[in-house]
Amino acid sequence: MTLNEQLKHKIDFKTKPLGALGLLEDLALQVGLIQNTLTPELKNPALLVFAADHGLADEGVSAYPKDVTWQMVMNFVAGGAAINVFCRQNSINLKVIDAGVDFDFPADAPVINAKIARGSHNMRHEPAMTATECAAAIQKGRELVQAEADNSCNIIGFGEMGIGNTSASSLLMHRFLNIPIEDCIGAGTGSHGEQLTRKMRILKEVSEKYDPKTPEETLATFGGLEIAMMVGAMLEASEQRMILLIDGFIATASVLTAIQLNPEVRANCVFCHSSNERGHKLMLEKLDAKPMLHLDLRVGEGTGAALALPLVQAAVNFLNEMASFEAAGVTNKE
Amino acid sequence: MTLNEQLKHKIDFKTKPLGALGLLEDLALQVGLIQNTLTPELKNPALLVFAADHGLADEGVSAYPKDVTWQMVMNFVAGGAAINVFCRQNSINLKVIDAGVDFDFPADAPVINAKIARGSHNMRHEPAMTATECAAAIQKGRELVQAEADNSCNIIGFGEMGIGNTSASSLLMHRFLNIPIEDCIGAGTGSHGEQLTRKMRILKEVSEKYDPKTPEETLATFGGLEIAMMVGAMLEASEQRMILLIDGFIATASVLTAIQLNPEVRANCVFCHSSNERGHKLMLEKLDAKPMLHLDLRVGEGTGAALALPLVQAAVNFLNEMASFEAAGVTNKE
Repeated sequence: MTLNEQLKHKIDFKTKPLGALGLLEDLALQVGLIQNTLTPELKNPALLVFAADHGLADEGVSAYPKDVTWQMVMNFVAGGAAINVFCRQNSINLKVIDAGVDFDFPADAPVINAKIARGSHNMRHEPAMTATECAAAIQKGRELVQAEADNSCNIIGFGEMGIGNTSASSLLMHRFLNIPIEDCIGAGTGSHGEQLTRKMRILKEVSEKYDPKTPEETLATFGGLEIAMMVGAMLEASEQRMILLIDGFIATASVLTAIQLNPEVRANCVFCHSSNERGHKLMLEKLDAKPMLHLDLRVGEGTGAALALPLVQAAVNFLNEMASFEAAGVTNKE
Repeated sequence: MTLNEQLKHKIDFKTKPLGALGLLEDLALQVGLIQNTLTPELKNPALLVFAADHGLADEGVSAYPKDVTWQMVMNFVAGGAAINVFCRQNSINLKVIDAGVDFDFPADAPVINAKIARGSHNMRHEPAMTATECAAAIQKGRELVQAEADNSCNIIGFGEMGIGNTSASSLLMHRFLNIPIEDCIGAGTGSHGEQLTRKMRILKEVSEKYDPKTPEETLATFGGLEIAMMVGAMLEASEQRMILLIDGFIATASVLTAIQLNPEVRANCVFCHSSNERGHKLMLEKLDAKPMLHLDLRVGEGTGAALALPLVQAAVNFLNEMASFEAAGVTNKE
């Protein structure tokens, strides 16, 4: 029997009706295959939050002022944000990374300095990143995940903070999935009315201004420093055979980008959360993802990933700990 | 300000976009109101699994033989079932209760003996329970929850094991919601084809045979011993101001019954899981419930409740631990 068959057999003969643990069964199979074992385990879970500013924020595409990016990073390091609470609760090692915030953090603040630039460029006028900046961000993302791998981490979530990054994500989604830009734009974290109309107009203009040919070029043109670094981190995590926890709109757009660069990334992804935002749902459909949590979160930061970790643990635990029909002396269905 | 307003204010001024924690915000508000405090906490979570046999199982309405009820109870006490795994993982105090299994458990097995009878009656011929049996089951369920309250438990889940209990639940749903019996019947844990047709025919016959007038009479006629005991447990848990974790088809039909007896029960319910089964979705809609987990579970036992506990904890934790905009020095949206 192949490992796939062995895992399916192990799952099917647990004391429960066939398939009755639903998505947890798919998850147990997936984790077993990623770790190449019948007895997987989760080790040293980590969550990397990448922060950066966006030149396009100057155009008023966001409901919040740009300063909120660095202010929220300071909130992360003080332990007061949602992602801090959920990582503490679920014993997840949280790292906060300055991928390109337009601010000088105090030397003693526990922020990992990976600053490529003080924010991306305003893509209304020029690509968000030069090819060099984008490549440097990807490389840095890879290195950060290598460090987690050295620490025996085998499951990793990805969070982000960057005022303006839903715009970048909408543009990436539009290009990679060939979906009209209008269908890729949501309210973000709080846009509505006139501001949403403005965001639509500007993103349409930006999408028509460029015609990048390769995934790398598309990422550099429409992405952001935190997004590019997250893409590098995802590529490396997949190569390191880690489980990738993917949650919201920006993380999903990032993994969509990573999959363009290496289709094998998809097999290691666990989709954690579905929001009510149309664009997010569309992306998840295209990725054939069935997210576990439906909490209507739209806070970013990797919160959906942190909240889903116990469910991945549950999948691993039932595979390792549940009795089989035979061992328990329970009659199976004929 | 009322407590409701104070809780909303506390939630709204956390460092996140307004409403961005979605269902967790509703949950934090609900838990605060249940516990009558701005700083709720979860104490000694418990999960009670009620087991009983069903006379109707003799008619072949289930895909599994009746013996599976006692065999699974033995699996619970040996620690090998799904609910054992998930309760261990989430530090939930699991109690296994014999509400009416047609089996004599070994004296040293850690099963709480609350046996009302050796199974319910075959409702093809007579009501599932006499009024006396039903009242005794409700009363016993109340006492079991009183014991948990004495142990300072303030959040409680409800599980069940009983071959044939999806049939009883379908009948209760049909009567209480005035929905055609056909729309209340699902595959249960594994029925299909000819067997499903047979189940439909028998339940239609049973539903037309009786015309109970009160909720108590309806429960006695169409329920089961584990369902009646669970209803009593839910009534008591609500009166004790506990949070009630409600998951699958049988637990939802039980809480629907409890709500007929005391509408105030609804305010204390947290709906944990939505299955893909049509009947379950319909009941959840009628109860205006928005379940958090979409895992396609159909194993029963309270598994959805056990898996959702960390999300309730997350709601409580963000309310207590997250910084406010003011405290964190983060600019709020204008």
